[in-house]
Formats: sequence, structure tokens, C-alpha cells
Amino acid sequence: MGNTAVTVIGLGEMGRALAGALITAGHPTTVWNRSAAKADELVAHGALRAATVEEAVLASPLTLVCLLDYGASDAVLRPAAGALRGRTLVNLTNGTPAQAREAEAWATGHGASYLDGGIMAVPSTVASSQAFVLYSGQKRHFDAHEETLKALGAAKYLGADAGIAALYDLALLSAMSVMFDGFFHSVAMATSHTESSAAGFTELLVPWLTNMAQVMPAFAADVDSDAEPVLGQGLDVVLASVRNMAQASRDAGVRADYFEQSAAALEKQLAEGLSTYTAPDAVRRLRASD
Amino acid sequence: MGNTAVTVIGLGEMGRALAGALITAGHPTTVWNRSAAKADELVAHGALRAATVEEAVLASPLTLVCLLDYGASDAVLRPAAGALRGRTLVNLTNGTPAQAREAEAWATGHGASYLDGGIMAVPSTVASSQAFVLYSGQKRHFDAHEETLKALGAAKYLGADAGIAALYDLALLSAMSVMFDGFFHSVAMATSHTESSAAGFTELLVPWLTNMAQVMPAFAADVDSDAEPVLGQGLDVVLASVRNMAQASRDAGVRADYFEQSAAALEKQLAEGLSTYTAPDAVRRLRASD
Ligand SMILES: NC(=O)c1ccc[n+]([C@@H]2O[C@H](COP(=O)([O-])OP(=O)(O)OC[C@H]3O[C@@H](n4cnc5c(N)ncnc54)[C@H](OP(=O)(O)O)[C@@H]3O)[C@@H](O)[C@H]2O)c1
Ligand SMILES: NC(=O)c1ccc[n+]([C@@H]2O[C@H](COP(=O)([O-])OP(=O)(O)OC[C@H]3O[C@@H](n4cnc5c(N)ncnc54)[C@H](OP(=O)(O)O)[C@@H]3O)[C@@H](O)[C@H]2O)c1
Repeated sequence: MGNTAVTVIGLGEMGRALAGALITAGHPTTVWNRSAAKADELVAHGALRAATVEEAVLASPLTLVCLLDYGASDAVLRPAAGALRGRTLVNLTNGTPAQAREAEAWATGHGASYLDGGIMAVPSTVASSQAFVLYSGQKRHFDAHEETLKALGAAKYLGADAGIAALYDLALLSAMSVMFDGFFHSVAMATSHTESSAAGFTELLVPWLTNMAQVMPAFAADVDSDAEPVLGQGLDVVLASVRNMAQASRDAGVRADYFEQSAAALEKQLAEGLSTYTAPDAVRRLRASD
Repeated sequence: MGNTAVTVIGLGEMGRALAGALITAGHPTTVWNRSAAKADELVAHGALRAATVEEAVLASPLTLVCLLDYGASDAVLRPAAGALRGRTLVNLTNGTPAQAREAEAWATGHGASYLDGGIMAVPSTVASSQAFVLYSGQKRHFDAHEETLKALGAAKYLGADAGIAALYDLALLSAMSVMFDGFFHSVAMATSHTESSAAGFTELLVPWLTNMAQVMPAFAADVDSDAEPVLGQGLDVVLASVRNMAQASRDAGVRADYFEQSAAALEKQLAEGLSTYTAPDAVRRLRASD
């Protein structure tokens, strides 16, 4: 038994990395992209170029899709629906849980096996030990292709609800996106000083954030527990430091609205009689109903 | 020559951790706190209790201050100004660069040597290999006490401007604070699913954020450089995923305003003709003047 043949539809930054990883892992790899020239380098490395999406899907028992969004993915796949029967479709395009569930209903309606996935890597780390890819959908579809999917990075199956990989993907991305926003803010503050460089500051920042991220499992345990939170900090100390962040940002010529809003929210909580900052409380306040 | 005697003023969560570390490192340690009972356990472990701030300052060549904010620190220290002459004062209270510079002017006006500091640790990690403390002010004052200060954690001297430790401290804290806000958001999203726990999700999140933080030095290099940024991502792909974060948050009953605002900002940038998301651009947009 040779390596499973795989088709990759979508050869942007990420799709090319995925196809490259499959070629490296020895899978016969068929590729298609709207702008055909993006396949050239992969073809030079052994990929087969399909002229149409239908031809691409028919070439392999397993098709991976990685496009801009589900609008693009729908536009690309619908004309080739007839080719899906008996094949497996894994959509790695970033989308919402609802889009993943719709895509599953559509694909299974055309006789395909469907998995939804979320790539937790950047193109340069695909297939590295850092990369992992989240999958959800019927477990047997995952089991059938797990060995192949491992070529992209660690394969994490999250459950039968096709939407859960997208939910976790977007949750992880939201935390990353916010972390980077904080990074940019901190760099803007630090580099306001004539004796600073972003690189010098970042040498302190990366170990600091990495250390502080180690607190998250204990915060998570507090969120999962019904008992009194184990971790807490005095709201007044937190407020004092957030006010300082806002003031120092303003003094440095850096936008302070984020910290001004945080300070206002903490003032309100103190006024309501809360005295401790805890993780379950912070999470509860983010529920839209509050 | 024995170990330098050290005074610690302020015995909240952090002050007690600092005093405890000094006692453990073998420094004769004098302590004072407004609510005297917070000294009891330290005294049981060998600390000397001072009856007044003045007595506390006079007991040691080196005094560390760790209070709620500079308002508290001013209120506590001003009555003891006369005791400062010829001694070193290190203010580890969280404050702004401007407050640090004022405190230096005030302390040197009373004949003290002054350093300002920022503690990059939580009480439980003080004196551990993870802890570091930022210092700024006259280098000779730092050199004179570096060995003693190392008892609290790695001692990082940032420069002669008394304000730079506070600037870096607040910049690091701002990045941490924003990172935790993102963590709470992501946990609220993930735990909206019946099959999720915060702990299970966080097992994926911590390595994800830790891996992604490794990108920061390359972003920082782009910020420091005048050349074209090396790292960039298509603004359209970023916008598509931010819209998905907002939609999935709403669908999960989680507040989406942060991501709605991010999406609106990215739409504006695309409308202005920008096509790539880069670190220098993100930092520039945070400058208040923009
Ligand atoms: N880059 C990353 O770091 C990263 C990380 C994790 C996940 N992802 C996800 O991977 C997916 C692809 O991202 P990327 O970085 O590869 O983006 P990209 O380089 O911009 O590529 C976008 C792809 O979508 C195609 N496309 C867009 N609109 C289309 C349409 N209407 N019809 C047909 N094809 C269309 C493009 O085709 P053309 O070449 O013809 O324009 C291209 O193949 C996104 O969902 C993204 O969120 C990316
Ligand atoms: N906890 C952390 O994780 C952490 C980490 C890094 C830096 N820090 C910084 O360390 C400093 C202290 O934080 P903490 O966690 O120790 O806070 P804390 O446990 O709330 O202690 C606050 C301290 O300030 C004193 N205080 C407040 N107002 C006062 C006033 N008007 N006059 C005299 N004393 C006053 C309190 O005295 P009483 O006991 O009499 O109330 C207590 O000693 C803050 O600047 C904080 O930002 C804390």
C-alpha cells in the first residue's frame, strides 16, 4: 500500500505550505488554484496540476481545501459537487462553527465524508513540531486519514460536532490576535523612549509573557470549578496599575483608550463592591448577556 | 563583611514576598507596614519590626518600598524624609515614569541615593529563576546594591533616566494584561460549547501562545528597521479571520465588540489601499497622533 493520494485546493501562502508538506511526506499530490501560476513551484517539486476543481477532486480519495474564507470555498467547490461522492473533504479554510456545520451538511448531502479543520501554525511552521491542526466531524473519517493528516502537523481530533474545531481555532486565534495587539502597544510604549529599541524591549517581553502564560492553567481550573477561585488579586492594585498604564501611554504619545476602558470597568466593579480580580469573574463578564 | 541590612516598607502580598526573599538570603531585614499585623509572620521568621517609618529607614543603608501606588508611597515616606540622607531608597511600587522621576528628585533633594524599580514577578515567583526586576537611576547606586537586589530575582539595569524602569514595567504589564484579556475571551468562547472545559482548551492555548510569541523578535526587528518589513500577512486574510472571530463570539454569546472594532479598523486600512498587515504599521497606528 502506497501513500494516500491527496488533493490540495487553494495555493495561497498556507495552501502551498500544506501541499509542500504532503509532497515531502511522499504523498502523490494534486493541486489546483484559481490563479494557476501559484502551482508552478509545487509542480516543479512533483505535484500534479489539475485543470479544474472537478479534476482535482477526482484525482484523490482525500481533498484538502484552504482558501480565503467559506465564501471562496463555496464558490470553488459547488461546481464540483458531483465529484465528491465516496471521497473525503477536509476544509481547512478559516470559518465559523456555523459555516463548518453547513459545509458538512452540504458535503454529506453530496455523498462525501467531511471533516472541518483549523490550522494552528503559520506557513513556515507547517509540518514542524510546533504545528498542530484541529479536526472535528465523524471520528471514523478522522481515523481513516489521521496518518496522512499528520504530515501537516500534530492532528488533534476534537469531536463529532463539525463546528468545534472552528470554535477552538477562532478562540485560539482570538487570544493570539489580542496578544499581538498588546505586544504592539507595549512596543509603542517602550520605543517612545530615546534609549529603547523594539528588539531590546522584546528580549524582556517574550520570557515575561511566556512565564505569565504559565498561570493560565490555574486560571482555567478556577473557571471550571464551582469552589472559591484559588487565584485572585486585589482589584485596587490591579486598577492602580491599569491607571498607570493608561497615564504612561498618554505621556508616551500612545493611544490609551484600551486601558482607560479597562480602568473604567474596574472602577465600576469596585463601586459594585467587588474586591478581588478572579478568572471566573473575568470570563463571566465577557458573556454577552451580562 | 556581613550581608547588607535591608528595610522593606509595605507588606502587602508583594512586600511580604520581597521581605521573605531577603530573610531567606540572609539579610538582616527590618519591616514596616501601615497595618502592623502583616509583619507578624515575617517577624516570626527573623525580621525586625520597626515602630515608625523613620525608625525603619534608619535601620538599614538600603530601603525598598512596595506600596499600592505613588500616592501611598508619598504619604508614607514624606514624614520620614529627614532619615533618608546618605541612604539608598529603591521604590518598587508600580508607577509611571513621571512619578519615578519626581520621586528621584524628591529623594535626592533629601540627600538619598534613589533607584526606581519594577518587579516582573508575582509574589509566588519572587526570587525564583523566572523573576526579574527592572531598575533605573544612577548606575553607581545600582552597582552598589546589585548583589543584594539579586535576592529578589534577576536584576536588570535599564539606564540613568529614573523613569525607564517604570516605562518598561508598564509596557510589559500592558502586554500581559491584554494577553490575559484575550485568554479570558478565548476561554469564554471555548467553554460556550457543551463538550468543552477551560482546562482542556487551555492545554492547547498555552503552547499556541508560547509558539506565537516566538514571532515577536522578528516583528520587533521589522519595527526597528527602516527597510521593508520582512513579516507580513494579507490584510484580507486577517480581516476574514477577525470577522469570523467576531461572528463566532456573537454566536457563542460572548461579547464581540473588540473584534468588531478590529474588523472596522482593518476595513478602513483596506479602503485606504493598504494590502499587508505589518508590525511597523501596527505600532505606528497606536501612536496617539495618528
Ligand atoms: N497564513 C497564515 O499564517 C495562516 C495560518 C492559519 C490559517 N490560515 C488560513 O488559511 C486560509 C488561507 O490563508 P492564506 O494565508 O493561504 O491566504 P492567501 O495567501 O491570501 O491565499 C488565499 C487563497 O484563497 C484563494 N481565493 C480567495 N478568494 C477566492 C475566490 N473567490 N475564488 C477562488 N479562490 C479564492 C486565493 O486564490 P488566488 O491565488 O487565485 O487569489 C488563494 O488561493 C485562510 O482561511 C487563513 O485564515 C492562514
Ligand atoms: N501582587 C502582584 O502580583 C504584583 C506584581 C508586581 C508588582 N506588584 C506591585 O507591588 C505593589 C504592591 O502590590 P501588592 O500586591 O503587595 O498589593 P497589596 O497586597 O494590596 O498591598 C498594598 C500595600 O500598600 C499599602 N497601602 C495602601 N494604601 C496605603 C496608604 N495610603 N498608606 C500606607 N500604606 C498603604 C498596604 O498597607 P495595608 O496593609 O495597611 O493596607 C499594603 O502594604 C503594587 O504597586 C503592585 O502593582 C504587585
